[in-house]
Amino acid sequence: MPLALTRTVFHPILNFFRLSSRLESKKKLSRSIAHIIGERPSNLRLYQLALRHTSASKETNIKGFRESNERLEYLGDAVLGMVIAEFLFKKYPYKDEGFLTEIRSRIVNRETLNQISRKIGLDDLIEYDGSRGRTMPARTSMYGDALEALVGAVYLDKGFNFTRRFVLKELLTHYDLEALVQTNANYKSRLIEWAQREGKEVRFEIIQEKGNSHYREFIAQVTVNDEPFTTGSGYSKKKAEQAAAEKAFELLQIK
Amino acid sequence: MPLALTRTVFHPILNFFRLSSRLESKKKLSRSIAHIIGERPSNLRLYQLALRHTSASKETNIKGFRESNERLEYLGDAVLGMVIAEFLFKKYPYKDEGFLTEIRSRIVNRETLNQISRKIGLDDLIEYDGSRGRTMPARTSMYGDALEALVGAVYLDKGFNFTRRFVLKELLTHYDLEALVQTNANYKSRLIEWAQREGKEVRFEIIQEKGNSHYREFIAQVTVNDEPFTTGSGYSKKKAEQAAAEKAFELLQIK
Repeated sequence: MPLALTRTVFHPILNFFRLSSRLESKKKLSRSIAHIIGERPSNLRLYQLALRHTSASKETNIKGFRESNERLEYLGDAVLGMVIAEFLFKKYPYKDEGFLTEIRSRIVNRETLNQISRKIGLDDLIEYDGSRGRTMPARTSMYGDALEALVGAVYLDKGFNFTRRFVLKELLTHYDLEALVQTNANYKSRLIEWAQREGKEVRFEIIQEKGNSHYREFIAQVTVNDEPFTTGSGYSKKKAEQAAAEKAFELLQIK
Repeated sequence: MPLALTRTVFHPILNFFRLSSRLESKKKLSRSIAHIIGERPSNLRLYQLALRHTSASKETNIKGFRESNERLEYLGDAVLGMVIAEFLFKKYPYKDEGFLTEIRSRIVNRETLNQISRKIGLDDLIEYDGSRGRTMPARTSMYGDALEALVGAVYLDKGFNFTRRFVLKELLTHYDLEALVQTNANYKSRLIEWAQREGKEVRFEIIQEKGNSHYREFIAQVTVNDEPFTTGSGYSKKKAEQAAAEKAFELLQIK
């Protein structure tokens, strides 16, 4: 790199400051991560990557391959899912797998992960659009995605046992598990409650029904004030309605 | 248990044989498991449970709770998913998370897990309907389910590192990973190929299209010889068609 060399020669002091400020920001990130996970990172690069949103992805030497936290998110999602699967398996020895699956999906729900990500201060560290901070709109999965990516980074950096402890002690403690278990997952009845509260009229209709003796499928439609809103499909009328109501819920962002 | 006591008194020899045959079958199971996982089980009960299909589930002291391998299957599914996630993450450092997710889902595909379960001899050990053996119809997920449950049992019995090695060395070696990666996941084109081979006429139609600017959904229908066969929905026409074609595939059991 002849240009860089020239620079070093001509601006040794400027270069020194540049280098030391980069070192300073690395040290700061290392301290922040240590604060979150309870131990100094061994490989800081993993955490830098975990905090890099797609919008700030970087070119690599591989043509067409840009680097962001998405691969680490994929890994962290699997690690998180497994640690929580074991936790619930042991906590509820007499509950069936349907219950365990449902509660786990509530725990790793995107909105909940977003909240926890903010609680532990990860939102301040995310790099996106070239800048760091929290001016992004609240309705994004960016924070939760970064949290999953962080779990992936911790796993690669510190191994399974450390990560398992981190998830159980630093993340799961933010949950009100009892409230989560009690939550009403009946989207149809919750949507009706919402409509009553808001003075809207909600209707459910089965708009299609297909199949033969081996295979049966229903499509339900939700209308809000007589306007078609969402549809959902399922192998029973009830399931189709629940699917349509759940989509309506997501769209309406009902809390 | 006065009856059992009486029995002991009246038939000491019969009782001795009963006990020793139960011990013998435990020893045999322990040897079989050791052969599969590469180490003697420490807690044989876990493996007995992993091999107990719902049809042979047992009453417990908890009212309404019957014990079978379904909870262990839930746990093993998560462990398997995570080990394979890490394996693919490291094997393909320049592939994006979409690729990794797709390949993983092909690896843990029910039909593939069934095959591997049979390859390692798990099918001979499964307890169902009160009897052991392999007279069940081939088209069942019983074998793959038991394999996942086995992974769950190994994890609880031997810990994470042992299980990780077991999955990588004893299960993943049965895969032709290159072939798996090359597999054509385009269900629409595969369904058309199938129709040509079988002399049938397959058509794809978008039968519904809904939504507003924030939300758009399509429903595609597959007809075989002019008969409605399956439908699928998606946020684009292409996705809806793929979903419908994939369902048709499952129904037709095209290999």
